[in-house]
Amino acid sequence: MHKWTRTDIEAMDKRFRGNLINGIAGFKPALLVGTADAQRQTNLAVFSNVFHVGAAPALIGMIVRPDPEGTERHTLDNIRATGVYTLNHFTLAQAANAHQTSARYPRNRSEFSATGFEAEWQGDFAAPFVAGAAIQLGLSLAEHQELAINNTHLIIGRVESVTVPAEVVRDDGSVNLVGAGSVATTGLDSYHNVDPGERFAYAKPEQPPRRLN
Amino acid sequence: MHKWTRTDIEAMDKRFRGNLINGIAGFKPALLVGTADAQRQTNLAVFSNVFHVGAAPALIGMIVRPDPEGTERHTLDNIRATGVYTLNHFTLAQAANAHQTSARYPRNRSEFSATGFEAEWQGDFAAPFVAGAAIQLGLSLAEHQELAINNTHLIIGRVESVTVPAEVVRDDGSVNLVGAGSVATTGLDSYHNVDPGERFAYAKPEQPPRRLN
Repeated sequence: MHKWTRTDIEAMDKRFRGNLINGIAGFKPALLVGTADAQRQTNLAVFSNVFHVGAAPALIGMIVRPDPEGTERHTLDNIRATGVYTLNHFTLAQAANAHQTSARYPRNRSEFSATGFEAEWQGDFAAPFVAGAAIQLGLSLAEHQELAINNTHLIIGRVESVTVPAEVVRDDGSVNLVGAGSVATTGLDSYHNVDPGERFAYAKPEQPPRRLN
Repeated sequence: MHKWTRTDIEAMDKRFRGNLINGIAGFKPALLVGTADAQRQTNLAVFSNVFHVGAAPALIGMIVRPDPEGTERHTLDNIRATGVYTLNHFTLAQAANAHQTSARYPRNRSEFSATGFEAEWQGDFAAPFVAGAAIQLGLSLAEHQELAINNTHLIIGRVESVTVPAEVVRDDGSVNLVGAGSVATTGLDSYHNVDPGERFAYAKPEQPPRRLN
């Protein structure tokens, strides 16, 4: 076993620490964030620091690191310019191209065309979806703050639309992400298929755990 | 395909919406949060709304919904009382017991003993770890705010310790979570094993994607 303390972590090689800390808190969602600027110049970036904030209202959070040259900065600028963005699932077969969106393309080069994804516009929604993505979410910017602790940005989006194959939504509203072909990610560079797994009934103190499948 | 708008989502049955919105943003980490009050009464709760905030300093975020009766509220109270908490990975074989920690046990009943986990104390750290967990993280409360948008709580913790089997940390610091037996979760009730997956090299605009394994 390794046991590293805070002091050990601070003394680590920067790249080693980045890989370790990005990986150590478990599996993460793998999502393509679609945005556009006011002139409809599109941007696409793979994100994993996305999390549930609430269901009523339906809110999804995201941490953005505004590297001055990076694709996350373009994403942030576009969200602030238009007030909207999209989250799109992808499959393991698309993971190489999804990962490629993290390259530092110049602002006038869209990651859609550079990496082989196609932009889909839905109505007058001012951010592009990924054409063919099994699950597409449209969000509007609901809250934005710079976290004083490390100058990253917390973005909270309100869910404006959910597009999902009917067959992956169960009668109780739960979503079969394995059926949708969605992938999980770990660290900064790994993408994974996920097994069907096990479901459990709502837990009650006086009852033992009960499997649903 | 279903396409639901914001208006449709607002009109959904509450339970259906909860399942849908908790599930639609992708796979999530599955972690047991260990805490104690000032009298060392322990609490253990399964959480999935956990995310990377930064590596230097090493920061991990968490969304907590302070249900007046629920285990998340006990977690929040304990973190505020002691300033520390732990994150512990678990395996699919332990998922039933991990899920059971979400039951509304009274404050004087520890989920550790109620659900079959054993508390492990490390030095003078004032929160319990899960004994035998492959990956154990100790955190100190670095930032706490109530999000005005829906009154959930954003907790950001500084990583004080990382305990991990040496064989799951690669030479570059990346973590083999599949090798650690960690699980992913979806929605409110599903736990999954994850395939080894694919790794890709750091992406550059002028190079095509390159697999590492």
